[in-house]
Amino acid sequence: MKVNGKGMRSIWLEPDGWSVGIIDQTLLPHALVTTRLTTLAEAAAAISTMQVRGAPLIGSAAAYGLCLALRADRSDAALDDACRILAATRPTAINLRWALEEMRDRLHAVPPAERVSEAYRQAAAICEADVATNRAIAEHGATLLREAWNRKGGQGRLNVLTHCNAGWLATVDWGTALAPIFKAHDAGLPVHVWVDETRPRNQGASLTAWELLQHGVPHTVIVDNVGGHLMQHGEVDLCITGTDRTTSRGDVANKIGTYLKALAAKDNGVAFYVALPSSTIDWTIADGVAEIPIEQRDGTEVSEITGRLMNGEIATVRIVPEGSAVANYAFDVTPARLVTALITERGVCPASSEGLLALFPERRGNEGRG
Amino acid sequence: MKVNGKGMRSIWLEPDGWSVGIIDQTLLPHALVTTRLTTLAEAAAAISTMQVRGAPLIGSAAAYGLCLALRADRSDAALDDACRILAATRPTAINLRWALEEMRDRLHAVPPAERVSEAYRQAAAICEADVATNRAIAEHGATLLREAWNRKGGQGRLNVLTHCNAGWLATVDWGTALAPIFKAHDAGLPVHVWVDETRPRNQGASLTAWELLQHGVPHTVIVDNVGGHLMQHGEVDLCITGTDRTTSRGDVANKIGTYLKALAAKDNGVAFYVALPSSTIDWTIADGVAEIPIEQRDGTEVSEITGRLMNGEIATVRIVPEGSAVANYAFDVTPARLVTALITERGVCPASSEGLLALFPERRGNEGRG
Repeated sequence: MKVNGKGMRSIWLEPDGWSVGIIDQTLLPHALVTTRLTTLAEAAAAISTMQVRGAPLIGSAAAYGLCLALRADRSDAALDDACRILAATRPTAINLRWALEEMRDRLHAVPPAERVSEAYRQAAAICEADVATNRAIAEHGATLLREAWNRKGGQGRLNVLTHCNAGWLATVDWGTALAPIFKAHDAGLPVHVWVDETRPRNQGASLTAWELLQHGVPHTVIVDNVGGHLMQHGEVDLCITGTDRTTSRGDVANKIGTYLKALAAKDNGVAFYVALPSSTIDWTIADGVAEIPIEQRDGTEVSEITGRLMNGEIATVRIVPEGSAVANYAFDVTPARLVTALITERGVCPASSEGLLALFPERRGNEGRG
Repeated sequence: MKVNGKGMRSIWLEPDGWSVGIIDQTLLPHALVTTRLTTLAEAAAAISTMQVRGAPLIGSAAAYGLCLALRADRSDAALDDACRILAATRPTAINLRWALEEMRDRLHAVPPAERVSEAYRQAAAICEADVATNRAIAEHGATLLREAWNRKGGQGRLNVLTHCNAGWLATVDWGTALAPIFKAHDAGLPVHVWVDETRPRNQGASLTAWELLQHGVPHTVIVDNVGGHLMQHGEVDLCITGTDRTTSRGDVANKIGTYLKALAAKDNGVAFYVALPSSTIDWTIADGVAEIPIEQRDGTEVSEITGRLMNGEIATVRIVPEGSAVANYAFDVTPARLVTALITERGVCPASSEGLLALFPERRGNEGRG
């Protein structure tokens, strides 16, 4: 998507043909700084310090991390070591493990002399596959937006609410929840996005707002408390969020607070869509509230907040009294009954076992029981 | 309530018998600083800069502001001028106007020579009436907490979720939503409070957490996104919030985000109580969503946040990209259908016209139409 008027991805091969460029996302939205990764250690550090984040992007960054490792040592032992080191950077990201296993299996089958070029080929393929998946989600989702716009009679603007960041910064390009928004905007639909701040890590205010600003999509940042009020007053035409894990019956685990927006959407007759690559579907479970473990993160993410001082410096301030306990749940589960439809790379379907199986018939017979 | 182990109110007459002590609430939770008000101008500034805030407390502070004005000039003209100046400090607070009108009517009827002593008598009476109202709310609400505790079988702790600050800092003492919590805690009930941060002004994280910490009530600060997840997992036994305006049929306008918590409570079978002095009831309207105007405040309350740097200094940081639009709605309306009961100084009633009229029969015949 666009940054300063030019197309940009979240990860790329530098003109030297081997080093890897990334955006240091920890400095957004205050500064756009790109960094060159030249070693396994640099790639691992970029993932663990969240210079790159978002499950699909982490997988791609790890794939390139393997390339950099193999440039230094093409042996089987070095390959396995590199996989271990990269897998340990983030403990829960599914795409990370998937990308590393895919790479390792193929590279073990190739003679050491050919491993570097093969690794770069595969890393590029993983990135391109991610972009293709997201482009398909963009197409299918944009159709829903166009239909909503037509239902609205083509008046005013189409108001879409989103929570957290499921944009191109979390993937290689396009994103998931934001992909249909970029697509519809580029096609001339007057989309306006209500951007939930998304406490405690503020991915909405810092990343989603920045992406939309750079690409020129009209948007307004609101605190997470506002969405219900806007829906009561007809100011939201539809919601789209991403999901970190989707159960076989369509329950979705996404950033904490998604469930509250889905309740408000239901209460006000507003469509609530969830966009996902099918790699996030966990076919082994059905009941998300009962079965998906919810990560609890460090309380300092709640009690401290980082931003830019008036003098331009980046600083962290404490906003909770010393001595008060803090709890930090990272995700919640929105039951399928609150989800209007799922937007996948294969098309749009009801959030139900039957809906998902109609799009993914090869999974019939091995889905979780509800 | 208690601060550093000693009883404290939010406003008091100093030992000199005429100057007025307040807590500078803009510095909480990072520093407890008290200030002496000695002139009308100082009182007006304390209200307009939100050193004192909360509708009941503003009324009391304005009453004492009149006392200070009359010490300088006891004439009719000075009295009217002072009322005008104090009324202009906050445009929407109902209690402010009510307190000033009450004071002015009575003081005009008194000879100038007696006005100062009469003003102090009345200001003290307004404060004491506020405390008595809140103490009654505490009693009625604590009964509900005790019943919930008994239903739970007296095991573990009683988990109460609250939003924003409806504590003693917003009144003269006790508070409204927090009053039953203080009462139940003092009576030995093992109450634990989930404190919503309450973006954008963070009154939960900065004021409610501080009040509970000082009084020794166990509590945990969470971001506003978390409540729904906790309710899904049985971690909330009941919710209590305050209200800024209550309609004749029991709709409540309260801090933005209250509606989302009420939806989650309904979805999970959790009781949702609203505590209020009857002075917040607007008998002239019924449909809160349609009829209560919602204040929009400056966007910098969303895009900037103030806290304490590691070096102890108080600093403000920007957390939204320059160039992104921001919207800041201060309140939302929770329909009566989502409110389990209202807790008033006269007792507990269903959130309905009939419920309210049973407690306030003198209002029968002049309530708004639903």
